[in-house]
Amino acid sequence: MLAPQGSPAPQGNEDQRWMQRALALARLSKAVSSPNPAVGCVLVREGALVGEGYHDYSRKDHAEIVALKQAGDQARGATAYVTLEPCCHTGRTGPCTEALIAAGVRRVVAATVDPNPKVSGQGLERLRQAGIETTAGIGESEARALNDAFACSMRNGHPFVTLKAGVSLDGRIAPRPGSVETGKPYFLTGPQALAQVQVMRHEHDALLTGINTVLTDDPQLSDRTGLPRRRPLLRVVLDSALRLPLDSKLVRTAQQDVLVFCSFAPIARRQALESMGVRVEELPGKTRGRISLDEVLGRLHEMQILSVMLEAGGMVNASALADGLIDKLVLYYAPVLLGTGGISLADGIEMQQLALQRPEWTQTGPDLRFSAYLRDPWQA
Amino acid sequence: MLAPQGSPAPQGNEDQRWMQRALALARLSKAVSSPNPAVGCVLVREGALVGEGYHDYSRKDHAEIVALKQAGDQARGATAYVTLEPCCHTGRTGPCTEALIAAGVRRVVAATVDPNPKVSGQGLERLRQAGIETTAGIGESEARALNDAFACSMRNGHPFVTLKAGVSLDGRIAPRPGSVETGKPYFLTGPQALAQVQVMRHEHDALLTGINTVLTDDPQLSDRTGLPRRRPLLRVVLDSALRLPLDSKLVRTAQQDVLVFCSFAPIARRQALESMGVRVEELPGKTRGRISLDEVLGRLHEMQILSVMLEAGGMVNASALADGLIDKLVLYYAPVLLGTGGISLADGIEMQQLALQRPEWTQTGPDLRFSAYLRDPWQA
Repeated sequence: MLAPQGSPAPQGNEDQRWMQRALALARLSKAVSSPNPAVGCVLVREGALVGEGYHDYSRKDHAEIVALKQAGDQARGATAYVTLEPCCHTGRTGPCTEALIAAGVRRVVAATVDPNPKVSGQGLERLRQAGIETTAGIGESEARALNDAFACSMRNGHPFVTLKAGVSLDGRIAPRPGSVETGKPYFLTGPQALAQVQVMRHEHDALLTGINTVLTDDPQLSDRTGLPRRRPLLRVVLDSALRLPLDSKLVRTAQQDVLVFCSFAPIARRQALESMGVRVEELPGKTRGRISLDEVLGRLHEMQILSVMLEAGGMVNASALADGLIDKLVLYYAPVLLGTGGISLADGIEMQQLALQRPEWTQTGPDLRFSAYLRDPWQA
Repeated sequence: MLAPQGSPAPQGNEDQRWMQRALALARLSKAVSSPNPAVGCVLVREGALVGEGYHDYSRKDHAEIVALKQAGDQARGATAYVTLEPCCHTGRTGPCTEALIAAGVRRVVAATVDPNPKVSGQGLERLRQAGIETTAGIGESEARALNDAFACSMRNGHPFVTLKAGVSLDGRIAPRPGSVETGKPYFLTGPQALAQVQVMRHEHDALLTGINTVLTDDPQLSDRTGLPRRRPLLRVVLDSALRLPLDSKLVRTAQQDVLVFCSFAPIARRQALESMGVRVEELPGKTRGRISLDEVLGRLHEMQILSVMLEAGGMVNASALADGLIDKLVLYYAPVLLGTGGISLADGIEMQQLALQRPEWTQTGPDLRFSAYLRDPWQA
């Protein structure tokens, strides 16, 4: 049966559908937009796509500008779907609000407002003043998840930290020391989980681990997705006594993308590492005899690192959790018992009732992916 | 548009649909059929239901007989859907095969053959000899799961043991001793998981726990579903020194349904417990200084207990796993960290790569239910 002639599709569904396309574009921008937010934009006129784009930090143009340039004259009267409220200030580029107004866009649908509480809502307000119809909140939760790191950095002045671990059914991340071969990673989880972890690494600005993990597993900690990224993934090691082996995979593959934080750097050791492309920073301040993770995160923020993925051992995990530095948990449970003596997910931590927000469980091959926020970077 | 006149529904789908009804009937029989299998039967003639029933041990009649009596003359020419191969021998009742033949049933669809390898297939063979068309294997996996306990008992001579536990994200089943109030259960999991555990208890013949769990949590270990069950749920405690407190909930609610296994029973203590309705058995044999769980299971088998649900502490769990006595795991993961010092799921166990069969993860309120077989009672 045919639908009655001329009955328009409900605008709500239309908006959802076009915003999904804008979100897909924003996803492409994940590893090329930092330290800017990942944003996608779609321009639609009379039900047809006339322009689209996403932000790439190297190419400067914001997503709206990429889409407007593509649409040319067809932007007049169009609706712009944009995953983040258009900016109304001049930074590296002029304000997107003015470009949208000048192009004659009739309506702007934004998935979420700007996470900066000081400017949030001002872009939409400027558009309304210019007579443009605005809608906000379509696809908001997805749009926010894409820019958790940007929001955290903007609102809290430190990177968004995700603790990622593979865990046995009895809550261990590694077998009892000495029970398996050292010097190579022990994989609890299956290939599906490992592939997801690669995508997670791709979407992060930095990985963080402890020297014990390096000495035990000799991991490479690299983004091997082959997908484009603007800045190399920064591989960060907490190594108070600067024990990082010169023949470790990290050092052998270093190209100024391995950064070691230590408490004291003997000069010869430092020079040897630096000659191999490793960056070394001394952070003399300590918390409970260890490098202050809080200070490390502060330094990473100064380097415009928005997101940090913690892939570490039980002790680093425990101190990060105990100090309240974790924003999100991503745990892959494997159907294995590692038994007593296995390394605990959070080694030495006290009982902690976690105020988990938005917990999600997903089957991932033979394993199970668990994720939850410990705090919402958009609400903090 | 109408389907072409007279086109028959595919027989495969019909069979699936009627067998689903037979399986639903078998499920009703779960707690009233033991030590017999849980079986449901549906009789269908010319596409219409003419009789149905399930086995209730107290009422003697097998499911097929219940359905045949209901159908009366209408059984002639009907198809019988039965969740387990009809018996062809005389036990408490006559053979169902002969009743089906005498009633003039035209076709028999069985979900699975008899788990007893010595008689498996003989019922269907007898029907075929009498000119009845037979089909086997429709809805087989569900039908087998309903009678895992019967199959295990029949084939292995011991009860089917399910280890059930609530677990924190870091693999602990209880907080560090002394960190929470003792004398009452500590609930890690939410109400949805607790409700499921009640249904699990309902479907079991016995629960098994250790004296430490009784002393710490003072649990009641009862089936509070209100659903009919033929025999009271047997509540079994491993208590080598017979320390079970007279004022514990178990003892105060005992009506010959609490069974304590000990290594040595001082006469006064034994009499005090027995006077309160507790059954006491001495099992002098020990494994590593503890009551032999293997021997306990042997005794329960002699009492026609088909299924045991282990709801115990880390040490009992560990020794049951280490001794290979667990058939199935059911773990509820709660979004909590219990931290170092919390009681491990399997306290003191060595690293164990579990050969998990058919692992399943299901969201259960805020928690996650994980289940897997460690061995298949139908294949052992």
